[in-house]
Amino acid sequence: MKAAVIQGPGNIRVEHVPDPRIHEPHDAVVAVTHAAICGSDLWAYQGTAPRKPGQRMGHEFIGVVEEIGREVTTVRPGDRVIAPFVWSDGTCAFCAEGLHTSCERGGFWGVPGTDGGQGEAVRVPFADGTLIKVPAGADDTLDRALLTLCDVMGTGHHAAVAAGVRHGDTVVVVGDGAVGLCGVLAARRLGAERVVLLGRHPQRTALARCFGATETVPERGEEAIARLRDLIPGRGAPAVIEAVGTWESLHTAISVARPGAAVGFVGAPHGVGGKVDVRQLFDKNVSLRGGVAPVRAYIPQLLPDVLDGRLDPSAVFDLSIRLADTPIGYAAMQERHAIKALIRV
Amino acid sequence: MKAAVIQGPGNIRVEHVPDPRIHEPHDAVVAVTHAAICGSDLWAYQGTAPRKPGQRMGHEFIGVVEEIGREVTTVRPGDRVIAPFVWSDGTCAFCAEGLHTSCERGGFWGVPGTDGGQGEAVRVPFADGTLIKVPAGADDTLDRALLTLCDVMGTGHHAAVAAGVRHGDTVVVVGDGAVGLCGVLAARRLGAERVVLLGRHPQRTALARCFGATETVPERGEEAIARLRDLIPGRGAPAVIEAVGTWESLHTAISVARPGAAVGFVGAPHGVGGKVDVRQLFDKNVSLRGGVAPVRAYIPQLLPDVLDGRLDPSAVFDLSIRLADTPIGYAAMQERHAIKALIRV
Repeated sequence: MKAAVIQGPGNIRVEHVPDPRIHEPHDAVVAVTHAAICGSDLWAYQGTAPRKPGQRMGHEFIGVVEEIGREVTTVRPGDRVIAPFVWSDGTCAFCAEGLHTSCERGGFWGVPGTDGGQGEAVRVPFADGTLIKVPAGADDTLDRALLTLCDVMGTGHHAAVAAGVRHGDTVVVVGDGAVGLCGVLAARRLGAERVVLLGRHPQRTALARCFGATETVPERGEEAIARLRDLIPGRGAPAVIEAVGTWESLHTAISVARPGAAVGFVGAPHGVGGKVDVRQLFDKNVSLRGGVAPVRAYIPQLLPDVLDGRLDPSAVFDLSIRLADTPIGYAAMQERHAIKALIRV
Repeated sequence: MKAAVIQGPGNIRVEHVPDPRIHEPHDAVVAVTHAAICGSDLWAYQGTAPRKPGQRMGHEFIGVVEEIGREVTTVRPGDRVIAPFVWSDGTCAFCAEGLHTSCERGGFWGVPGTDGGQGEAVRVPFADGTLIKVPAGADDTLDRALLTLCDVMGTGHHAAVAAGVRHGDTVVVVGDGAVGLCGVLAARRLGAERVVLLGRHPQRTALARCFGATETVPERGEEAIARLRDLIPGRGAPAVIEAVGTWESLHTAISVARPGAAVGFVGAPHGVGGKVDVRQLFDKNVSLRGGVAPVRAYIPQLLPDVLDGRLDPSAVFDLSIRLADTPIGYAAMQERHAIKALIRV
């Protein structure tokens, strides 16, 4: 089959790789119909996250089950399925608590020896604990929205949950990437009345408004903090979503949080040491919560809303390409010509 | 009257200062009967926290109301009262939410222009919002225990609440100072089954065991982390109390937290930049919660337990001195000859 691999920084290729097969009785093989490129894939592309030459790429995919191991009971060949960005056994203590990202036997797509999502097919370990079946009869036009459940929509939701968004809240979202945009949707879905998005890319902030942001702020750093202090009375926002992961964005998020508030952080820490000044947290009793999102736990909650059209994050994909053109998708995202690329397989 | 002042690092004196008087109609004047020296007072003593020469010291005191302003309604002359370490108006949005430490008109005892707790009397702003009356008839032998409610016991409780301690939990407490020791009491009070205290001072760890710690670990840093990994199966503790405030102690607390756990941090950040690596928090979905404890909110919850003897933190005071000997108390705590000094006024 064909799949995207990385041969070095800036060097994504679509190559012939071995067809996936059932290795373990709990495996399934999924024929990928749609995959996505994530902002975090760009760190490998930029060379800031190490990868071995030839390593597979991609951790977001939906598809159709092709084959199952003899122990698999919840999906069968022909089922449309959604794959979270981490596989999980579904049975350990962490899975039972809904923290599938800490599964005792879980792992990330594309680590050496496994398939990545950007390819024609994927061997899925622990298919019962990992895959979520799309109900038969769901409209094909929902594929783009369903694909966001693999990562960005679940991650935005995790941020909103971690930030403790409540009905009527004012929420600040730091970051206008796909996750920040999904954070806007998630905050509104949880009842936020006012959502202020920090972002400076006109196309993205326009989409944020479509998603329910009531205001957008283009400033950064101390200027953004000052602007938000003017915009939000009462010493800050009771819930803040951090969807970037740099020191500056975390600092901004903590600075605009109201005393007693929570910052839901889902921007994977990268650059500038990934450190945060805890003095502000301490003085204001601001909580820092979140992390790598256990989207497997959230998909069953979010899927019904996607299926009936109440939740539609599909517009985060502003570029659609064929698998063979995956390198073009990376380049477009790297150059910020695209928010997020969808790959039709 | 006489009160403790700081004239420079290592230089505490008990001097004549003006008698406090009612300035505002919401003020009360409290005659101090018992005060305490806090671990954080030592930062001023050591010169790491700046103070103006002549600035008053102390933020923990109980006493008897001497005089009240015309608007004060909840306490009257002759009442025994407990003062939290921050005064608060009791009416702002933050006080209403139980976050009195962020009160719009609140403040810390001993800031220039105000009285400190280590003195014969204190002018208390917003007496109704600040003071808590001890029920008439409470035994005098409870004074030592009541004094802990001003700060350390409420702070230990805040840490346990922030850490999300639940019935049956295993809790790690980092730090064997008075707050860590009170954290042990608080964790047990909230139902923790197993409490492991990190500390290396034999007298303190012995007291920790009296307070309900089931194990104590003398190692520090990476050695302590390795030891705790052996002691606690299942990838760490579901609740961790951080009661020191250094980079190392925070790192230890986060490292021994189970994925999905919360670290309740109440050690005021000091030294080594007060920064924390968020990568571990992110990967494990560990929450960092807590901060300066709103003890005013907790005193009404803890006081009944102290009054009926179910909660007795009084043993954190292992040195009792007269006001005139306050400098001796500082020296004893600085040299670690005492855990915490009580001042009889």
